[in-house]
Parts: sequence; structure tokens; C-alpha cells
Amino acid sequence: MNNFNFYNTTQIVFGKGQTKQLDKLVPKNAKILITYGGGSVYTNGVMDKVKAELVKSDRKIFEFGGIEPNPRFETLMKAVAICRDKKIDFLLAVGGGSVMDGTKFIAVAAVADEYIGKEEELLKFGFAGTPIENPLPLATVATLPATGSEMNSGAVITNGEDKLPFFNSKNFPRFSILDPEFTYTLPPKQVANGVIDTFVHTVEQYVTYPVDARFQDRTSEGILQTLFEIGAKTVNEPADYDARANLVWCSTMALNGLIGSGVPQDWSVHMIGHELTALYGLDHAQSLAIVLPAMWRFRQVEKSEKLIQFAERVLGITEGSDDYKINKAINMTETFFNELGAKTKLIDYGITETDVEKIIKALEKHGMTALSERGDVTLDISEQVLRMAL
Amino acid sequence: MNNFNFYNTTQIVFGKGQTKQLDKLVPKNAKILITYGGGSVYTNGVMDKVKAELVKSDRKIFEFGGIEPNPRFETLMKAVAICRDKKIDFLLAVGGGSVMDGTKFIAVAAVADEYIGKEEELLKFGFAGTPIENPLPLATVATLPATGSEMNSGAVITNGEDKLPFFNSKNFPRFSILDPEFTYTLPPKQVANGVIDTFVHTVEQYVTYPVDARFQDRTSEGILQTLFEIGAKTVNEPADYDARANLVWCSTMALNGLIGSGVPQDWSVHMIGHELTALYGLDHAQSLAIVLPAMWRFRQVEKSEKLIQFAERVLGITEGSDDYKINKAINMTETFFNELGAKTKLIDYGITETDVEKIIKALEKHGMTALSERGDVTLDISEQVLRMAL
Repeated sequence: MNNFNFYNTTQIVFGKGQTKQLDKLVPKNAKILITYGGGSVYTNGVMDKVKAELVKSDRKIFEFGGIEPNPRFETLMKAVAICRDKKIDFLLAVGGGSVMDGTKFIAVAAVADEYIGKEEELLKFGFAGTPIENPLPLATVATLPATGSEMNSGAVITNGEDKLPFFNSKNFPRFSILDPEFTYTLPPKQVANGVIDTFVHTVEQYVTYPVDARFQDRTSEGILQTLFEIGAKTVNEPADYDARANLVWCSTMALNGLIGSGVPQDWSVHMIGHELTALYGLDHAQSLAIVLPAMWRFRQVEKSEKLIQFAERVLGITEGSDDYKINKAINMTETFFNELGAKTKLIDYGITETDVEKIIKALEKHGMTALSERGDVTLDISEQVLRMAL
Repeated sequence: MNNFNFYNTTQIVFGKGQTKQLDKLVPKNAKILITYGGGSVYTNGVMDKVKAELVKSDRKIFEFGGIEPNPRFETLMKAVAICRDKKIDFLLAVGGGSVMDGTKFIAVAAVADEYIGKEEELLKFGFAGTPIENPLPLATVATLPATGSEMNSGAVITNGEDKLPFFNSKNFPRFSILDPEFTYTLPPKQVANGVIDTFVHTVEQYVTYPVDARFQDRTSEGILQTLFEIGAKTVNEPADYDARANLVWCSTMALNGLIGSGVPQDWSVHMIGHELTALYGLDHAQSLAIVLPAMWRFRQVEKSEKLIQFAERVLGITEGSDDYKINKAINMTETFFNELGAKTKLIDYGITETDVEKIIKALEKHGMTALSERGDVTLDISEQVLRMAL
């Protein structure tokens, strides 16, 4: 097991009717900015429930809607202006990963006085994290199980054609309310995306190379087994509470630091996927569903031990040669994505051989020249993986 | 899945050489009281490493040793007096579960001004938690994988013949350093106790009844499988880093709130075990190893679904009738305890039929009249379980 540091200060309030806790959880007298996305939280009743609690104490409530999928810098800056103007002291993100991610940027930019007028520079710190000491406190009412943003300090912010990691060590939500019933009205495609997103988050931290980290491995395997079991069911039967609750909790646990503690991490599939989203507008999960099978096929030697472990323990493939197990596991994963409605080839989105160079150029621009758990995925290898995914 | 609240603010700093982080982690200018137990931290070099870091900044360091296994109220009150006298503002527990537990009491009692002279009353709040708002901040350098105290807000304090739960919601260690190498010099019996303790913590939250909480179940199963795999090995080969690291991390994860979130919890084995420790001086783990097999045999109908799941998924018992699976799983668990050197009958410790009444009286005195995940373990049932364990 590798050395590690695990620290996660988010309070999770999970289950049916938990918005009832909001009046207790949000500071009295707060000046709150509620952030949200396209407005579905108004049509599905979530916002009403949230506000009904917040008004029970003497709070000032402002709102900012319209945070788009893959939240954009210029959109978020409008919210930053409101924070400054209204002296907001608490942010409540009501929505999915993009709303929560965008709100993390707002929390930092709103107080980064030394960056006024040049807030774009805050996007340059990447995984190292911005040096802003006391971002605005934020919390979430999460409505989409996918990104894990409700229990981590990271975000992804889009600026032009750049999709950029954004971290701040103080950006953990103070609390996150996870009511699985709030996800019942999601379009099936978004739920399927959430299943795939959670799946790929998990394998980026698990299908690497073994370091004898048994708790971490088995916890990852538990998430993956659960997704195989409930993935299709929860897409097709949205109001099955238990299936949805299991998806919601797995998606949170897949990216809160726990399963990645003390083990190697990959993330090359995400980094290549981000370019597909930025350049061609694919959903995040759609991009992952394309890159993962190709990456595994191309790097099956480097990942052989964990691919075999995945085949045996998660999928129950215990017969046959190592090669057979690996190939069957990759095929079953691709089939799983397909059955969830996700396509797994670039050509399915009209991306052809002539686009590969452009994608590689974008990776180069973003410094993605030595990806993977071993740092051995060069631009040349990324190119071959993309060709394999055509 | 049941509704739940999960909140755990302890920073875990895990691995070889991590005491090097202490100067960064402990406030500069702190007036620290280092608490410890019988003094093994002096002979094995841990205390030297701790102090070498602490003196790198301008801190005042005081010490309090002699916290005994099953830490006693009157011992801890001596440390409380030091805290008051020296105006201690940070507690660093260097030791195992008893030192960490005892330090949690010290943290509360030292600032509970309204309880001066009547600190025993602080022991009456039980699982509800003391109402003290701002206990002294505490952190730990944990040297024994067993209790999980390094990442939770609970403790067990002994007063006379009473072994009492002690909680305060602000008593999470600020950080805990878990260096598996610090555990190499533990006596084999203590390591075996740690394996058993971790095992029983896990099953108290897992072998109850199913609520379709797949992440929680599989995470518990991962801990149990790991213990079966590495339990004997880490007792017999103390310097095998990876085996020990897996035990250390599993023991922390078994009692930090994670696997118990959203599922029923039992704890009847612990409550009965506490009386055996208080009355007859058995090690905590020794008491659990006796009560658990008897409890499972007596309540195998109520626990049948989860016992079968445990048999199938953890122990791979997939053939035979349900009864066969249950009985084999219980027998294998008892054998596992025996192979770790733990005896599993009361008579092994000279406790006979004539003692049963005394134990039941103690349970009654402590209000333990409706134990288990269903509240259906009455004093009468506890008595029958104890008779089964003779």
C-alpha cells in the first residue's frame, strides 16, 4: 500500500425528505446565493422544498440560474459579480455536477481580491489548487448522481475550448443533501451517463497495477459490481428507490478520495475524454465510454494484473487463460455501456481519422503528454488509442 | 437503504515515516499534553520521533503517561488537572485505543467548567453525547490497529465496575498518523485482539438484516475477507508491511461511521462483552470472541439472511442448505478466532454458570435490556446466549 493522506470534511445527509434538515444546516442570517442550472429544479419541485426550509430563519436569498453543462467561465463570472455586489456569504448549489463544479469556482473567485479583472488566471492552477485561503462556504443539494462533486473539493471548468481541472483544498461542500427521490425526473440518458461516469471514476483508481491495498480494491469492486447489478434497472425504473439510492451513494463514494487513497491512479481516459467534450460537445460520460475500451485494449499488458482481478472478482470470469479473461472483461464492459445506450466508437459521433491530429494537438496544448498511473501514455500512445477507438 | 448522516472530519495521514508531518499538522505555539499508556512508546522509539518533530516549532510540551487498558476515570482526572493547571490547548494521544479513548474524555472534562468537582456526571450521557461545545482539540499517533478510535468521536471509559460509552460530536481527532511500522513491536496477542476487534466491529454493522445497501455490504465484506486473509499472517509475521498496513486501514474503516451508514446496527455482542471485561478483566477482544459465536447461534433465525450472505460472499460457502451455510460460517468464524489464539468459551476464563446472574444484573443496571438491530435481545435472551457460551 502506498502512503496517503485522506481528508474529507463534507457532511452527507442522505435519504428521503432530507431537505427538512436545511434550516438547521445553513447558518441563520446568511446571505445566500442559490445556484442552479437549466431550471429543472423549478419544474420538479426541488427548489420549492429548498426555499421552504431556508425561509424558516431570517436569511436573504438570491438566485443565479443558467449554469450550463460543462460550466463556462464567463457564465460563472456573472454569479461572481452578484456575490460581490450583494455581499453573499453562503453558496447553495442545487443541481448536478456542473452546478456544483461551477459553484466551487464562484466560491473562490468571489473572494480572490488579488485576481479581480484577471480571474481567468485562477484556472491555471490545475490539480495543484488555487492558493485562495478562505473561499465562500458552499453546500449542495445534489440532483444527479455522477460526478462526486458533492463530496470532493474538485471541479472542471470550461473556458473557450479548454476544459480545465479546478481545485481548492477548502472547497469541500459544508454539507450535501442527497435525496435519491430528487433524481427520479432525470432523463434516462443522464442517469445512464451517471452510471458510466461512476464506473469510469472507479476504474481510473482501480484498474492500474496492484499494490496490495485490499480495502481499496474491494471497495472499488463493490462499487463496480453494484453498477453492473443496478445500472440498467435504475435507468429503466427511475422510481425504484433502492436501486437509485445505491447509484447515488456509489457515485459519491467513487470520487471522494476514499478508493484512491494509497493506490496508483490513472485518469488518462478522463484527460482524453475532456478533449472530446471540449472539441465536439460530447457528454462527459459519452467520451469516457469511447476512450475506456480502447485504452484497456491498447494497454492490456501494462494493466494485465488488475484487468484479470477485475474479470475474476467483479465479473466472475474464472475460467480460461489470462488473455481470455482480459478480453472478455473488456468486451463485457463495452457491452454494459452499449446496453446503457452509450456508443463506444468515435465514428458514432462523426469523429473520423482526420480529427485525431486535432485532438492530439489539444492534449499537447494542455500538457497531457505523460498520462496514466505510470506516466507512460505519451501523445503517441494517446493517438494510437484514439485510432483504435475510431 | 435507510436514511443516514455521515460526517467525519479526521484527517488521516497514513504510512511509513508520516510522523515527519507532525510539525506541519500541530499548531505552532501550542501547549501540548502528550498522553500515552504503559510506556512502550518510549522503548520502541515512537515517542522520540514524535518529539523530534514537535520541538521544531516553539511549543510547550507536557506529558501524561500511565493510561491503562480500559482507561479509568480516576486516572484520566489526573490528566484533566494538568490541562487546567498548565492551560493545555492541544492534546496528542500517542498509543492505542485506550490512550485515544481516554484522551477524548480528557478533552471534554478539561473544559467542562460547569462540571468541576462532579466530572463523573459526564459519563452519564452515553451514546447521546456530552453537551460540551468546544472540547480541547486532540490528535493521535495511533500504535495499535483495533478500536477505530483514531477516526471517530467515541470512547469507552471505565468507572468502578462500569464500562461506559462516551461520545462528543466534536471529539473527532483533528488528524491521526497511522504508521503501520509503529505496530511491529506489539505483542502478538494484542495484534490478534486487534484483528478480532475489527472483525466484530464490522459484523455488528453487517450481520443484521438486509436493507439493500450494496456499497455498505460489500465494503464490510471486503474488510472481513481481508481479515480472514491477513489475520494469522500479520500476527505471525509482524514486519510484513503490507499485511500490517491492510490490518491498520481496515481497523480504521471498520469503525469510522462509513459501513454503518444507512444500515441497521446490532452492538449487542459489544454490550455483553463490556460486562465481561468490567467484571472479570477479560480483554475487550477476548470478550467479543466468546459472545459472538453464541449470539449468532442463538439468533441465527433473525440473522439468517445476512448470515447466509456472509457465508456465501465472504467465506465462499455456496453449496448446501441454508442451515448448513449458516452453521459452517459460524464454525469457521469460531475457528478463525481460535487460530488467532482467542478462546471462545466462558469456562476458558473460569466463568461458570453461577456467574451468569451477576453478568445479567450488570446489563440490567446499565439499561441493556433491549439490545440488537431489532431491540429484541432482552435480558432473558442475553442470559440464554451467555449459557450457550459457557
